[in-house]
Amino acid sequence: MILAFLDELVALWAPLGALQSLAARAGLAAILGFVCALAFGPRLLRYLNGKQVIETTDCTDSEQLNTINRSKPKTPTMGGIMIVGAVLAAGVICGDLSNSYVLLAILSTVGYGLIGMIDDWVKLTHPGKKGLQAATKAGLQILIAAALAFVVTRIFQKQPVPELLWLHVPFSDLAIDLSGLGGLPHMLFVMVVVIGTSNAVNLTDGMDGLAPGALIVAAVAMAAVSFAVGRAESLQLDLLYVPRAQEMTVFCAGMAGATLGFLWFNAPPALVFMGDTGSLPLGSLLGYVAVVTKHELVLFIIGGVFVLEAFSVMTQVGYFKFSGGKRVLRCAPLHHHYQFGGMPETRIVVRFWILGALFAAAGLASLAVQ
Amino acid sequence: MILAFLDELVALWAPLGALQSLAARAGLAAILGFVCALAFGPRLLRYLNGKQVIETTDCTDSEQLNTINRSKPKTPTMGGIMIVGAVLAAGVICGDLSNSYVLLAILSTVGYGLIGMIDDWVKLTHPGKKGLQAATKAGLQILIAAALAFVVTRIFQKQPVPELLWLHVPFSDLAIDLSGLGGLPHMLFVMVVVIGTSNAVNLTDGMDGLAPGALIVAAVAMAAVSFAVGRAESLQLDLLYVPRAQEMTVFCAGMAGATLGFLWFNAPPALVFMGDTGSLPLGSLLGYVAVVTKHELVLFIIGGVFVLEAFSVMTQVGYFKFSGGKRVLRCAPLHHHYQFGGMPETRIVVRFWILGALFAAAGLASLAVQ
Repeated sequence: MILAFLDELVALWAPLGALQSLAARAGLAAILGFVCALAFGPRLLRYLNGKQVIETTDCTDSEQLNTINRSKPKTPTMGGIMIVGAVLAAGVICGDLSNSYVLLAILSTVGYGLIGMIDDWVKLTHPGKKGLQAATKAGLQILIAAALAFVVTRIFQKQPVPELLWLHVPFSDLAIDLSGLGGLPHMLFVMVVVIGTSNAVNLTDGMDGLAPGALIVAAVAMAAVSFAVGRAESLQLDLLYVPRAQEMTVFCAGMAGATLGFLWFNAPPALVFMGDTGSLPLGSLLGYVAVVTKHELVLFIIGGVFVLEAFSVMTQVGYFKFSGGKRVLRCAPLHHHYQFGGMPETRIVVRFWILGALFAAAGLASLAVQ
Repeated sequence: MILAFLDELVALWAPLGALQSLAARAGLAAILGFVCALAFGPRLLRYLNGKQVIETTDCTDSEQLNTINRSKPKTPTMGGIMIVGAVLAAGVICGDLSNSYVLLAILSTVGYGLIGMIDDWVKLTHPGKKGLQAATKAGLQILIAAALAFVVTRIFQKQPVPELLWLHVPFSDLAIDLSGLGGLPHMLFVMVVVIGTSNAVNLTDGMDGLAPGALIVAAVAMAAVSFAVGRAESLQLDLLYVPRAQEMTVFCAGMAGATLGFLWFNAPPALVFMGDTGSLPLGSLLGYVAVVTKHELVLFIIGGVFVLEAFSVMTQVGYFKFSGGKRVLRCAPLHHHYQFGGMPETRIVVRFWILGALFAAAGLASLAVQ
């Protein structure tokens, strides 16, 4: 922890004495994330604009959508580099690097960030292709998720708390034991959470400001969850204590700050898009934090917007195949459904943010009500 | 407290047993505020659209601005009715009506709401006029603020805590004693805070979503301040305890929820504007809460966006007079300065929201750092 050294340096100045506290480090991570993104942003924008790193659409009904998007000016993508860089800087500087959960968070962010970058890059340099081949992309995602799942499950198994391998249901006392078969069900579950969140955020990323706004709210809420998990007793909450998991507060705060800094440039009309470079690692980080803090199903509530978007695609694609060509929505993911209905893009984005805030509030309420 | 009765009714259902807790009531107020605004919204919109309640501009350089705004469709104003109604509903149902601070909050909201409504109404029915005569409007604002200031000062004087009449400076141990001359300096200070906040929010209200977004963030932060003031000890914060002031948490939460509900309709492109009907009472409520919780200067930080907007107008008008016709900004309030510089409106709005979030975070940090 680089901060330990800084702490000694500044021990003379009283306010910074609070730096050893988790809340203070989280606050500092948020500030650092924001400042890094804001400082790095203009430089990255110049580079991407010079390289003509322009996004092609991802929608399932892409012809119709291309007509809408054709009116937009050429906006570079891969802005996610800004967020990933800022998150990593904040996490490394403010986080406790002796904590294995922190190292895994870095691994997950770097891994998914690279997948996203390669995918974005292939899309750009091979205009005919829609990015990495689906199988290659899925394979890489599964590989990293499997590594995370294996290590986290092993860490949980070594602790004297069997509940760490249970799946807890919010607003209830229910729990499902996933510890059988050497922890295999738990590993598979972790993979589903990480890969699912990652792809759900990816699907949400399709309108100026939409994904970053929803991600900021979710990151703040997950920071609160991580903080609460570490202080359940003093907060008078009946939560399962996961040793050392509270360090995730710092990462979530850094992510909230970094994404807020990115939103400065992504605010409608966007100057840059995050691309898969941003959505895949940020989504996987949210999922990973939910796993480590044992609040997987609470993230399902907090990230309600991402869940809705993912379900809209699954429903649309599923029904299309089942019915032999019919559609449930005008277009999937969900935000395009409203766009096709004639709603202005900025109104859709702000309303989805409002929904995100409501979902986050509901998720946090589940910590208190059981 | 209507909830006391409800509590007994639902005592059988365990989760609602938590309703007696301040946090639970605040959460319920936020939900109620949101739901009321959302439910009442469409009906109000139909009414206002039928009446052709259309806004005229407020800018100091209104000719230039009218050119920009002419491209906008005719949008009704007085949408603030929605927020004020929802705040009052949430406050009355979830708040403790035996608490004098709550009664004063209701008085302040109703009073400033009526001034705003009359002002909006005069603007609409007398197209030549720019609303109420400046002197009449200021006189009414001073009248209500004086009543609030008098009663709050008397309540503070009756308590055995002399610090209640001091002005505390954030990030320091400094305090200025305002208790002399029978509390007159304190009364005047309260009036400045309430009237100042009210008008600063009024000036900020000039772009789709701008004021509501900034108000939501400020209301959430002031809810946190009120909550912290009541629980300073268990939160390990060194704050002055103001007996019964923590009840303001409920009002702030209700305001955040109601304004979030309003934003649903005010999201760019706006379907309705709040008008003075919204900005005056919401601003005064923020100022009043800061006074009651003894965090007046912390609100100065939390509401940094409103402060910037107000200062931009004062600077512009002052320099214009002083220099004999020169301007510092292209147009005041500040948001129009950027608009005249060619920045798209939605980008200005989202960036001001981001600034609001940073100011709120800085203000809350001042609670922990002293």
